[in-house]
Amino acid sequence: MAWVDVSECKRFSPEKFQKINLFETDRMFCDVYCFEAGQEQTPHKHQGADKIYYVLEGKGLVQIGAERLELLPGMAAHASSGEEHAVKNSGPERLVMLVFMAPHP
Amino acid sequence: MAWVDVSECKRFSPEKFQKINLFETDRMFCDVYCFEAGQEQTPHKHQGADKIYYVLEGKGLVQIGAERLELLPGMAAHASSGEEHAVKNSGPERLVMLVFMAPHP
Repeated sequence: MAWVDVSECKRFSPEKFQKINLFETDRMFCDVYCFEAGQEQTPHKHQGADKIYYVLEGKGLVQIGAERLELLPGMAAHASSGEEHAVKNSGPERLVMLVFMAPHP
Repeated sequence: MAWVDVSECKRFSPEKFQKINLFETDRMFCDVYCFEAGQEQTPHKHQGADKIYYVLEGKGLVQIGAERLELLPGMAAHASSGEEHAVKNSGPERLVMLVFMAPHP
């Protein structure tokens, strides 16, 4: 069975935020993103694909389109096809998010 | 922005486990599944689609193919195209899972 304990997959780097893949097929991927304080994923978009962010730990300032919202643990946001999106660790603690994307870009 | 506080979306029924949709497009969906003690999602499969289960609360006995594993909070499992899968709330507490599926069946 393909399974993971996400808490054992976390990895951080002072250089940049880390993307750790949990599951991946031709159709989708599921990653855990790990941000040190101040680190960010810069604005970008995916034509024809959806992305979901779910906060596991910390605080993430999520931008989707022209809107920004601070997500706390247990909160999720969705960037649909073509919507510009970005995340910044807006807290003093580490930020950990589950990220799902489909189809696989 | 499309966002949710998942903890505010939970809903339980003594009749059967509840599926609450969080996000949905033509390409994928993201639900929260809420199980009372003993409730289950019976074995089924999806040709050409992936499903991911992530446990938020409680204990879930997940079957994928011929294997079974008890997932605790923070653990995730992946059922790929054509793999039979099922979940049962194996604990005395309520079971809450994030569920992602792509493409949308």
